[in-house]
Amino acid sequence: MASPNRIPEIRKDTVNNRWVIFSPARSRRPSDFKSKSNPINPTSQPECPFCIGHEHECAPEIFRVPATGSDWRIRVIQNLYPALSRDLESSGELAGRPGGGSVSLSGFGFHDVVIESPVHAVHLPDLDPVEIGDVFMAYKKRIEQLQCHDSIQYVQIFKNHGASAGASMSHSHSQMIALPVVPPTVSTRLDSMKEYFGQTGKCSLCEIRFDALLIDESIHFISISPFAATFPFEIWIIPRYHSSHFHELDGVKAIDLGRLLKLTLRKMNVQLNSPPFNFMIQSPPLQVSPTQLPYTHWFLQIVPQLSVVGGFEMGTGCYINPVFPEDAAKLLREVSIS
Amino acid sequence: MASPNRIPEIRKDTVNNRWVIFSPARSRRPSDFKSKSNPINPTSQPECPFCIGHEHECAPEIFRVPATGSDWRIRVIQNLYPALSRDLESSGELAGRPGGGSVSLSGFGFHDVVIESPVHAVHLPDLDPVEIGDVFMAYKKRIEQLQCHDSIQYVQIFKNHGASAGASMSHSHSQMIALPVVPPTVSTRLDSMKEYFGQTGKCSLCEIRFDALLIDESIHFISISPFAATFPFEIWIIPRYHSSHFHELDGVKAIDLGRLLKLTLRKMNVQLNSPPFNFMIQSPPLQVSPTQLPYTHWFLQIVPQLSVVGGFEMGTGCYINPVFPEDAAKLLREVSIS
Ligand SMILES: Nc1ncnc2c1ncn2[C@@H]1O[C@H](COP(=O)(O)OP(=O)(O)O[C@H]2O[C@H](CO)[C@@H](O)[C@H](O)[C@H]2O)[C@@H](O)[C@H]1O
Ligand SMILES: Nc1ncnc2c1ncn2[C@@H]1O[C@H](COP(=O)(O)OP(=O)(O)O[C@H]2O[C@H](CO)[C@@H](O)[C@H](O)[C@H]2O)[C@@H](O)[C@H]1O
Repeated sequence: MASPNRIPEIRKDTVNNRWVIFSPARSRRPSDFKSKSNPINPTSQPECPFCIGHEHECAPEIFRVPATGSDWRIRVIQNLYPALSRDLESSGELAGRPGGGSVSLSGFGFHDVVIESPVHAVHLPDLDPVEIGDVFMAYKKRIEQLQCHDSIQYVQIFKNHGASAGASMSHSHSQMIALPVVPPTVSTRLDSMKEYFGQTGKCSLCEIRFDALLIDESIHFISISPFAATFPFEIWIIPRYHSSHFHELDGVKAIDLGRLLKLTLRKMNVQLNSPPFNFMIQSPPLQVSPTQLPYTHWFLQIVPQLSVVGGFEMGTGCYINPVFPEDAAKLLREVSIS
Repeated sequence: MASPNRIPEIRKDTVNNRWVIFSPARSRRPSDFKSKSNPINPTSQPECPFCIGHEHECAPEIFRVPATGSDWRIRVIQNLYPALSRDLESSGELAGRPGGGSVSLSGFGFHDVVIESPVHAVHLPDLDPVEIGDVFMAYKKRIEQLQCHDSIQYVQIFKNHGASAGASMSHSHSQMIALPVVPPTVSTRLDSMKEYFGQTGKCSLCEIRFDALLIDESIHFISISPFAATFPFEIWIIPRYHSSHFHELDGVKAIDLGRLLKLTLRKMNVQLNSPPFNFMIQSPPLQVSPTQLPYTHWFLQIVPQLSVVGGFEMGTGCYINPVFPEDAAKLLREVSIS
C-alpha cells in the first residue's frame, strides 16, 4: 500500500501552517501488543435515546426536520452533558485567578447534537444524497440561529463515528459546539491563508487542485488527499466555487455535497474496511471583515482513524504519516463502488 | 472525582497559548460502546529485541551506559523504522512540487531509541532515582551529539507507555527525534513566553507556582497540575531554578529529577490504576538568541491516557477536560506511597 522504497519527506501544510513527516518505512514496524483495534461495533442494543419514540429520554429539542409531526428525519437537540453552558451568557472574564498570567472565562457556549436518522442502525452513507443534504441544511439553520448571539465567535461542526474516533453513542449523529473564543487552529489557518493571498493575490483553496491528489469531483465540489495530509487517508471535500463560510451553502449544493460525501464514505469503507472516522467542517470565525473574505474558504475534513497518536505528535504538533497522499488518492480514486 | 456541581470554565494556557474547556458534567456521560480500554499488557513475551542478549536484532547502537562491556544498563540505538533519514543531510528543499504554495523538504533527521533497562519487565518507576538520572544524562549526551549538525533545529524527547499511548514495543524505552525544522508547538510556546516576559519582565515558568496546583516538590523541581491542563491529570515537572534547555541538566539534578519522576509515576499508577501514558521533554529550539534565554524554561510534561480525542479537538485544537486541575492536584498530592 505505502511505497517502502521512497525516502522520507517533510511537507508543509500551507493551509494550516504545520509540518508533516511522510515516512513509508514506518508502516513496516512490528508491534508486540495485542490488536490495537477498538471495538467499533456497538453493543447489540437495538434502541437508544436518539431513536424515534425515545425523544423523552433526550435533552430538549431545538428543532426537527420536517418542522412538525412525530415522523421526523433529523432532530437538533441540546447535548445532555454539554461542554459549555448556554446559561452563562455575558458573565465574561473570571476574576481572582492565580498569578503567572492566568486567564479564564466563564464557560458560556452552546453544545448541540444533530441526530441524523430516526433509525438506530442507519448510518450517514446509507442515506440518499437528498437526505444527507438535509443534514447539511440543518447545520446551516442552526449556525444562523447561533450567529444571533454576539459573543459567539465560532461554531465547530464535527462527527465522531466509532469508539476509537471518540464516539460514546453509536446512533448516527454529529455535534455542534458554539464558542465565545476563536480556537487556535482556526486563527492559525486564517493567518496562513492571508499570507498566501498576500503573496499571490489568490485564495489557497481555490488553487489547491492538483490532478495527482484528486479523488473525485462533482458539479460544485472536489475531494482530494491534501498535499501535506496530517493523517493517513485524510480527505478534504472543497467547494470548487469560492465560498468563505459553510453556511453560505444552498439546497442544491447541499445535495451535491451529500452525493460526494456518500461516495467518499462508501469508498473509505471499501478501501479501509469501515474504519472509525471523524469529520470536521472547517470554516472561518463567524465575524470576518470584508477584506478577509477573498482568502477564507471552508472545507469538510474527513479523518479515518488508522493510527494512534504518540508522544512525538503531542509534544511537537508535528505528525508522522506513513502514507503519501498521492498513493492514498490513487487508491481511493480507483475504488469501484457498485 | 470531578466536581459535578461546578460550572464550566474556559481557561487559557498562557505558556502554550491555547484555550481549554473545563467541564465536569462531561465525565457523567454514558457510553453505549463496549469497554474502550486498550490492552496495555504486552503478550506474555519474555524477551524482545530490546532485551539484553538480543542486541544483534536491533538497529546499530550509538552508545551504551556504561560505555563498554556487555553488562549495559542503558542503550541508545538507531530506530530500525526511522521517521527521518540520517543519510539525507543537506539535500534541502525539494523542487518541482505542485502549485498552491506547496513546500517540501527532504526528510533529513535522526530518530533514536533509548532502551531504559536491559530487562524486559522492568519499567521506569521500578528503577531507582540514580538509574532514572542516568537515563536523563543519556538524553543529554545524545542531544549534545545531535547539536553538532548545523541543520538540526530541535530535538523532541518522548516516551510512549502502553498501546493506547501509541507504543508498539512494551520493553521500557523512550525516543528522540531530531528535526531540521522548529515544530509548531515549540514556536508557539516561544512566542507566548516572550509575550509574558515583555509584559512582566519575568519568566512565566519561574512564576507558575501556585499552592492549589502543587503536587510535590524536591530540591530542584516541582510537580504541578497546570492551571489550564489540556488533559485530565496532566502533570508538569518544572525546574525551580531558571533553566532554558533540558541539556543544561547536571548529574546531581538528574538524580533529583529521577526521584521526583519516580514518585510521580508511582502516584499516577496508584491513583489512576496504572494508565498508559506519554511524557515529553518540552525544551526550546537548540539555537536561541541570548535575548531569548531569560524567558525560555524547559519542563517535563506527563500525560496519562484517560480519554479519546474526538472531532472537536481535531477541528479546533481546543481540548475538553472534565477534571479541574486543582482537583487532580489535590488527589495526587494526597496519594500515599509506601
Ligand atoms: N439522552 C441524551 N440527550 C442528549 N444528548 C445526549 C444524550 N445521551 C448522550 N448525549 C450526548 O451525546 C453525545 C454523543 O457524542 P459522541 O458520541 O460524538 O462523543 P462524545 O461527545 O461523547 O465525546 C467524544 O467527543 C468529544 C468532542 O470531540 C471529546 O471531547 C471526547 O473525548 C470524545 O469521546 C455526547 O456528547 C453526550 O453527552
Ligand atoms: N529491532 C529494533 N531495533 C531498533 N528499533 C526498533 C526495533 N524494533 C522496533 N523498533 C522501533 O522501536 C520503536 C518503539 O516505539 P514506541 O513503542 O514508543 O512507538 P512507535 O514509534 O512504534 O509509534 C508511536 O509513536 C509515534 C511517535 O509519537 C507515532 O507516530 C505512532 O503513531 C505511535 O504508534 C518504534 O519506533 C520502532 O520503529
